[in-house]
Amino acid sequence: MREVEILRKWFEKFHLIGKTPEGGVTRLGYTVQENEMHSTLKRIALEEGFHYEADPLGNSFVYLDNKKPFWMIGSHLDSVPNGGCYDGVAGVLAGLLVLKWIKESRKDIPLKVVAFRCEESSRFGRATIGSSFMTGKDPLDFSRLMDSEGKTLFDAMQEAGFSPEAYCIEGVQGYLELHIEQGRVLEEKGLKLGIVTSIAAPTRFRLKIIGKQEHSGTTPMGMRRDALVAAAEVIRLVEELGLNESGYSTVATVGTIKVLPGAMNVIPGYAELGIDIRGVDRESIKRVIDGLTAGLKEIALQRKIEWKLEEISKEEPVVLDEKIVECLENAARLEEVDYLKMASGAGHDAMVMAKITKAGMLFIPCKEGISHNPNEEANFEDILTGARVMLRFLEEGCRCFY
Amino acid sequence: MREVEILRKWFEKFHLIGKTPEGGVTRLGYTVQENEMHSTLKRIALEEGFHYEADPLGNSFVYLDNKKPFWMIGSHLDSVPNGGCYDGVAGVLAGLLVLKWIKESRKDIPLKVVAFRCEESSRFGRATIGSSFMTGKDPLDFSRLMDSEGKTLFDAMQEAGFSPEAYCIEGVQGYLELHIEQGRVLEEKGLKLGIVTSIAAPTRFRLKIIGKQEHSGTTPMGMRRDALVAAAEVIRLVEELGLNESGYSTVATVGTIKVLPGAMNVIPGYAELGIDIRGVDRESIKRVIDGLTAGLKEIALQRKIEWKLEEISKEEPVVLDEKIVECLENAARLEEVDYLKMASGAGHDAMVMAKITKAGMLFIPCKEGISHNPNEEANFEDILTGARVMLRFLEEGCRCFY
Repeated sequence: MREVEILRKWFEKFHLIGKTPEGGVTRLGYTVQENEMHSTLKRIALEEGFHYEADPLGNSFVYLDNKKPFWMIGSHLDSVPNGGCYDGVAGVLAGLLVLKWIKESRKDIPLKVVAFRCEESSRFGRATIGSSFMTGKDPLDFSRLMDSEGKTLFDAMQEAGFSPEAYCIEGVQGYLELHIEQGRVLEEKGLKLGIVTSIAAPTRFRLKIIGKQEHSGTTPMGMRRDALVAAAEVIRLVEELGLNESGYSTVATVGTIKVLPGAMNVIPGYAELGIDIRGVDRESIKRVIDGLTAGLKEIALQRKIEWKLEEISKEEPVVLDEKIVECLENAARLEEVDYLKMASGAGHDAMVMAKITKAGMLFIPCKEGISHNPNEEANFEDILTGARVMLRFLEEGCRCFY
Repeated sequence: MREVEILRKWFEKFHLIGKTPEGGVTRLGYTVQENEMHSTLKRIALEEGFHYEADPLGNSFVYLDNKKPFWMIGSHLDSVPNGGCYDGVAGVLAGLLVLKWIKESRKDIPLKVVAFRCEESSRFGRATIGSSFMTGKDPLDFSRLMDSEGKTLFDAMQEAGFSPEAYCIEGVQGYLELHIEQGRVLEEKGLKLGIVTSIAAPTRFRLKIIGKQEHSGTTPMGMRRDALVAAAEVIRLVEELGLNESGYSTVATVGTIKVLPGAMNVIPGYAELGIDIRGVDRESIKRVIDGLTAGLKEIALQRKIEWKLEEISKEEPVVLDEKIVECLENAARLEEVDYLKMASGAGHDAMVMAKITKAGMLFIPCKEGISHNPNEEANFEDILTGARVMLRFLEEGCRCFY
């Protein structure tokens, strides 16, 4: 059976789990759907003659033997509501294929394929739960995190049959993750592989603008303190600041806006924006924030408005291990795959794993960059390509640093 | 009793009707509160030795004799929910004072003071109901207009004791209305009187902008089709177009905005704006609309977005009678009152009366331009000044055109 057909066969075993009428899938963390994804993985593993094991948190491990130290390749098996079938799954399939090759070639490469639990933040408002708790690095309160129905993570994990306690996995030599890009960069450049150098972290702000609410008919243009026009200038500024930092892969977005009173015949007296700034370069992120603050002062002066910029969250970007990047490049060259070194704009389990071990990440294209959507689509050929590069990395490339 | 004290005494009789905890008043059209306003007017009229009469629609008339043709001075006695105490009432008080002066001086000036019903659109979504039906010019379907509880205007009028049928008042020689400005122009110029030359009419649009909804982290700045940034350019453009037409008293406002999906980590794929353009000069309004359309084409081309501009309503501005304006100016000069000729940005009963007779309007300042709000405040001295100018107009000024 051709390797692409093997990937497809495995993929189809997962395909119908949590299927939605719109053609997407809903497989939230620690629900029966996610459980079914993991028991399907177990079935595949046993069919292939691999060992299977779940850790106390429900993360799945598939492997040939229990040697330490070992490499890990994996991703996650949960999804957002009505999400796509490739996000996470592609990385687990790639790992299985690498393990299958190792088994068939009888090479001495200790590898565990991992499928993390609850990577998406959709259910508990917090991403990468399985990997975070497994690395013992992020001791969240299991009872504090709650889903929209008021069920705590603690209860959800117990109901799914697991032990809500953080621990730290041992013996990991390094971690690799293949993931769909969830953007359009590879597709637009006609490339099949991205080697991720760093994972962006969002800094988020809530901006409040206070102007003057007045009758839109009786207030001359020159006398206004229109909060929405001031907000419009900020929106343009945020875009400009992001564009200026394009060379550093920093992006800046206003995703939400609210005005009060929000009536046709009233000049908005209040506007509120949600601003999301992401990047992998701390200095570049800082320049955007400084530019925003400076711009706000100017706009406030000119338009006689008041403003308040509240930082909602600030996460640190993760720079992936340079040696791993170098070895992945080497492996790609040996496999004759053109690649692009690039930053990841979204967070992934690799970001968490990087805290306890050397971590690397590969991107494959996804159609039109569409993700978290029933129309998400990726190519089995590309998963295969990524798997080949990872195998080559394990065979050859990772000698770079030993 | 000083005239200011007379005005205050009358004002205080109305003051507590429909009082809200916030210090405003709620006197919606054809409710018990509005009925009480009109029966209070009747009591004042009879105390002062005037005649009182209500027409079949419930509009009140106060007069000395039934001579025809007659002048009318008045305004309305209803309010918006939690509105101010001067909007409408000021004009009725001014009319009563003029009538009192005429009675005391025994001058032969036929005058009826009118208090219209339901001038505010708050209850039935339609403004100037009393004056519109009375002038027979606006044959609305009494059964079609409904309040938020599903009660038709027909039923509301019948319950209040009136006959829901349009008729056309006869024998009107001209109409004058004093009203608070509901803007800040007079206050900022330090003037006590505005002579209204025209009443603006709103043209309203709903603008839909379709961009591309994508992940804010994984989509580089240069690849975006952000509907909100395009909307921000439109908001700035609308302001600029309004500023360019300041000389024509045209104003342009974006009062509402909505974006989809409206999430911190998603580039808005859709934005919707509510645009309100008002003016008294048709050509000026047209330039704003043309400028908006031209600008939209340019923005769409640059940003690769799609747009749809839907006209929601289009009303014609009303130019008040030039002769009346001239005679009011003459009267103001004779009374040594500095005045400003100005446009009204908001609609008034005078706009309706102008369809059947020569109509004129005076503005007096209101504190900080605040109106439709418990903090609405005007000055009895200014009502007195306006009344003096109206009396002088009737005594002297209106000879201008006979």
